[in-house]
Amino acid sequence: MRTTSDAFHLAIPVHDLDAAAHFYNELLGCKLARRYPDRITVDFFGDQLVCHLTEGPPPEKPESLYPRHFGVTFREAADFGALHALAVTRKIPFYCDVSTRFDGMIEEHRTFVLLDPSGNLLEFKHYLDPRMMY
Amino acid sequence: MRTTSDAFHLAIPVHDLDAAAHFYNELLGCKLARRYPDRITVDFFGDQLVCHLTEGPPPEKPESLYPRHFGVTFREAADFGALHALAVTRKIPFYCDVSTRFDGMIEEHRTFVLLDPSGNLLEFKHYLDPRMMY
Amino acid sequence: MRTTSDAFHLAIPVHDLDAAAHFYNELLGCKLARRYPDRITVDFFGDQLVCHLTEGPPPEKPESLYPRHFGVTFREAADFGALHALAVTRKIPFYCDVSTRFDGMIEEHRTFVLLDPSGNLLEFKHYLDPRMMY
Amino acid sequence: MRTTSDAFHLAIPVHDLDAAAHFYNELLGCKLARRYPDRITVDFFGDQLVCHLTEGPPPEKPESLYPRHFGVTFREAADFGALHALAVTRKIPFYCDVSTRFDGMIEEHRTFVLLDPSGNLLEFKHYLDPRMMY
Amino acid sequence: MRTTSDAFHLAIPVHDLDAAAHFYNELLGCKLARRYPDRITVDFFGDQLVCHLTEGPPPEKPESLYPRHFGVTFREAADFGALHALAVTRKIPFYCDVSTRFDGMIEEHRTFVLLDPSGNLLEFKHYLDPRMMY
Amino acid sequence: MRTTSDAFHLAIPVHDLDAAAHFYNELLGCKLARRYPDRITVDFFGDQLVCHLTEGPPPEKPESLYPRHFGVTFREAADFGALHALAVTRKIPFYCDVSTRFDGMIEEHRTFVLLDPSGNLLEFKHYLDPRMMY
Amino acid sequence: MRTTSDAFHLAIPVHDLDAAAHFYNELLGCKLARRYPDRITVDFFGDQLVCHLTEGPPPEKPESLYPRHFGVTFREAADFGALHALAVTRKIPFYCDVSTRFDGMIEEHRTFVLLDPSGNLLEFKHYLDPRMMY
Amino acid sequence: MRTTSDAFHLAIPVHDLDAAAHFYNELLGCKLARRYPDRITVDFFGDQLVCHLTEGPPPEKPESLYPRHFGVTFREAADFGALHALAVTRKIPFYCDVSTRFDGMIEEHRTFVLLDPSGNLLEFKHYLDPRMMY
Repeated sequence: MRTTSDAFHLAIPVHDLDAAAHFYNELLGCKLARRYPDRITVDFFGDQLVCHLTEGPPPEKPESLYPRHFGVTFREAADFGALHALAVTRKIPFYCDVSTRFDGMIEEHRTFVLLDPSGNLLEFKHYLDPRMMY
Repeated sequence: MRTTSDAFHLAIPVHDLDAAAHFYNELLGCKLARRYPDRITVDFFGDQLVCHLTEGPPPEKPESLYPRHFGVTFREAADFGALHALAVTRKIPFYCDVSTRFDGMIEEHRTFVLLDPSGNLLEFKHYLDPRMMY
Repeated sequence: MRTTSDAFHLAIPVHDLDAAAHFYNELLGCKLARRYPDRITVDFFGDQLVCHLTEGPPPEKPESLYPRHFGVTFREAADFGALHALAVTRKIPFYCDVSTRFDGMIEEHRTFVLLDPSGNLLEFKHYLDPRMMY
Repeated sequence: MRTTSDAFHLAIPVHDLDAAAHFYNELLGCKLARRYPDRITVDFFGDQLVCHLTEGPPPEKPESLYPRHFGVTFREAADFGALHALAVTRKIPFYCDVSTRFDGMIEEHRTFVLLDPSGNLLEFKHYLDPRMMY
Repeated sequence: MRTTSDAFHLAIPVHDLDAAAHFYNELLGCKLARRYPDRITVDFFGDQLVCHLTEGPPPEKPESLYPRHFGVTFREAADFGALHALAVTRKIPFYCDVSTRFDGMIEEHRTFVLLDPSGNLLEFKHYLDPRMMY
Repeated sequence: MRTTSDAFHLAIPVHDLDAAAHFYNELLGCKLARRYPDRITVDFFGDQLVCHLTEGPPPEKPESLYPRHFGVTFREAADFGALHALAVTRKIPFYCDVSTRFDGMIEEHRTFVLLDPSGNLLEFKHYLDPRMMY
Repeated sequence: MRTTSDAFHLAIPVHDLDAAAHFYNELLGCKLARRYPDRITVDFFGDQLVCHLTEGPPPEKPESLYPRHFGVTFREAADFGALHALAVTRKIPFYCDVSTRFDGMIEEHRTFVLLDPSGNLLEFKHYLDPRMMY
Repeated sequence: MRTTSDAFHLAIPVHDLDAAAHFYNELLGCKLARRYPDRITVDFFGDQLVCHLTEGPPPEKPESLYPRHFGVTFREAADFGALHALAVTRKIPFYCDVSTRFDGMIEEHRTFVLLDPSGNLLEFKHYLDPRMMY
């Protein structure tokens, strides 16, 4: 179990701050904490995500989920389902729709992956056995 | 405040699993959750970090902290200090030692940055005003 | 003690959504949850504040703190102090600076009052005896 | 998630302290914290509500729910239902009975509004997706 | 450690409901939950105290603290001190002022005892070693 | 909601310490904290119960539940049911078996009352609407 | 209820550190905290287990569950079931498969016992009445 | 961090139930949960300790702390100190008095070891850096 008082923080590149604010705040429903000329900070499911403005065009759609992505592993299936419903209702682009991985093993979990406007991949997961969340 | 039941998860590239396990488990004091042939998963301060084995040589030391790094923002100064002491005692390589940013502003915080064997940057922070953690 | 799962919500009139967003998000450091054409919703110290766009000019500065104002009573003096420091550093307009009320009585508390751009009054308090928070 | 140690506080006008005490304590089931000659303070679902005695007749029934009302957003549907049952059983006046708003959208929620003896409007809500509580 | 979801409840005799309400709510600062013709219920430091109206004159001042009394054991010395200050400031009648019991033993604790208008004794305690609270 | 760090404490008369220890520890399943020549202290559902040895024969069975009894109000119906099952399985004497009080009102709750060997009455309750626990 | 801040710690003998690490980390899914030449420390369901390397061959399979074994009593049946499923799926050796003990009594619980490579016995339990966990 | 809802349980041999009850309940201040003809169960700092009556004389004083002992790692130095004071005041036999181990390293901690009447060793620890508790 993690603490409630500390926060994970992740800094990622984005190529357009307005597009990032639209994606994370208006589509994904994260709260916008702060905006500076070169970055926005977001309360991403309780942790801190910082989107840094980066020069150049956004990358092509990534070729693989690996090795770099981030997201949330939900303890409750209902929270996983609610976020998937949000992504469908608000037409957020999926990189991969829901699938089951490690089928029949203790690590079995469902997962889906969203794509942000700068090509960052967001994976959301739910494990049958919550001890496997790590 | 974040939940204790969900976990942030972050997947990053590493170029040597043994070196990653040594860095995150033996030096940084994170618990090792699982090891597969192509990855290790780590309980990183209560969240899930997955280190994926990636081909090719590790990158040069990064030119900038931006736009990509990750870490923890501590609520208590004592926890920030304890981790800094650990890094010094165990001779973990610093990318930047402790400095103060946004001096005299409400966002004022202390920060230091560590470098893992695959060139990933880990930032640890402590804010004077805990409401600014986001 | 209150629950963490439910939230208080308060709807107030504002006369300019951009000014309200500037005041609550950029000055007061509250997270912006959602924006609609006629309102913004704000995570106000953990509760929900909805600012509804209202026609007409903003009212004059209120004549009295009573009967209508809202705010937060902090359990810890440090949190009261941190918010006061934020208001001073960021030059948020004070309606009343810090004073002590009910001096020498059990209800003794410190208080200060801020003024938002639409004439709403925000009171922040800290009681010597936390049982008097209600 | 909000803290359990701090409390929201809201001050509202009332035109009759006995009627306010009857409404909030005996009908709505809130605990009465303190009574002074010119105000009562109430533990309103865990937060502090202060009813200030105000001169003049109570206002007509409000023309609109906007822009000014307050209440609670419940995390659990059962708590929303229990409060609605209380209002029906104890014949508390409804300003609006239960309806669904933002139907088919992620912000979908049920809501009902009660009217206190001084014309203050109390809204109680329950969202399908608890992330939309803000 | 006890649960937060269940509540202890204690029913005691009182000989005058107004005097009981004055003592528990206005002097001791407990919240008044409900009033019926023959009883009041009080949120007594988080637990439920029911004062039942009983016929006959109140008893003489009790001869001994034993065997019947009730109260709170505080985990923090500051909370013990704050309640003692409240009793002094508001001139609540003491049955015994602060003394130390089991001096030099592990069970050492400070205690004071208040007297309600119906002759009920309320003891408040603070132990040096919190494991001795039971 | 009550704190987890403080404890309610109640002192009651008993006429036989062994019988009291048998009743509270072996039958009711409370943990025995301490034993002195003239008293035992018990962890009674998370709060402190002190049974003081009192001279004289135990009183007759009490004529009425009022005005003096104590017990626990459970938040969850399952906990109420489990304790009732324990009382039946272990043949603890009932003063009143389960009944429903305040039927059809918001204060509706189920209750049963046990009798200890010294004639003390223990009431256990569960309310339909948990807000009525006070 | 126990604290979350302290940890139980248990030191046990093992005859092969690699076998112990395989059993506790890879099979049982506990996180590996630290490894020294003569011991490993494991986050065993939230508490600390230290496996000390001991000379000599491992003992024969124990003749009896008593008097020495350790494990976890789960509050939720689902967690008990998930661990049993893990043991079956990963073919962890059972010393005793699931059985019910104290049938028809308040202490009734289900239990199964696993065997580690050094002959240590691990018992996992779930009680019908959670108050009997002690 | 561990859960509050599950409990570690440890079964150990003892050679005299009365001596064990005296040691764990009256000296060490643990609550006695249950007593059977062949065992006692104890709430050991929030976890379950079962002392099983075993035939034969108690073993000699153990030659080494390793490999078998158990105890508690305290998060707060004050709790470590309070338990040490209890052991001194109540003259509980020490196997080793307080010493510091891993001096100058991140794993640095203070520790002392008590000896129960059946030769079981109880170690209590406090780490400078709480992350090293595992």
